Amino acid sequence: MQEAQPLDRLFLALADPGRRGMVEQLSRGPATVKELAGPANMRLPSALKHLKVLEDGGMVVSRKVGRTRTYAMRPQALAPMRAWMREREAALNAAFDRLAQAMAAMPEEDER
Amino acid sequence: MQEAQPLDRLFLALADPGRRGMVEQLSRGPATVKELAGPANMRLPSALKHLKVLEDGGMVVSRKVGRTRTYAMRPQALAPMRAWMREREAALNAAFDRLAQAMAAMPEEDER
Repeated sequence: MQEAQPLDRLFLALADPGRRGMVEQLSRGPATVKELAGPANMRLPSALKHLKVLEDGGMVVSRKVGRTRTYAMRPQALAPMRAWMREREAALNAAFDRLAQAMAAMPEEDER
Repeated sequence: MQEAQPLDRLFLALADPGRRGMVEQLSRGPATVKELAGPANMRLPSALKHLKVLEDGGMVVSRKVGRTRTYAMRPQALAPMRAWMREREAALNAAFDRLAQAMAAMPEEDER
């Protein structure tokens, strides 16, 4: 269960449309709290709470210079999710291949 | 916000390690409730509750034959997540390219 935790936090972080919007914005480049709160009409304390979830989940990093805190996506932020998804898709494809092979091996009846 | 809901439900469904285990199992092929509850030592009512979340989220379908309900992954179950992830990765790559171009355009100082 221990190694499941990063994926738990990653998926939970992305289940909220407000946080997803922040990740979409940060994918295009770093932004300040104010810039991140703006598009969603979010209040600053609420934006900071969402950003804390993203930071705790290892998706973003932040740096305070003077009075301004700027957030940036971590380049490998989505890597665990991508790896998990690829494993599932590979398994699904293999399952479909087995089904197709089983169908091909079935004796054919005459068409009516 | 309306179109965000499928992703909300998808990510929320996958944020639970028990449900993620079920998706991992179903990616390898259809399974009954009993087969899905077994590996996680889950009780049947708890397993059915998790499976309902996956079914409501559009990830799995089920069919009852006699007294046995069997679940299967929908082939396109992960497609919305894959599409969302690819858009973010494309944006991230474009942002890094812009950074690299900006760096290349900076005047160089003599090395020390």
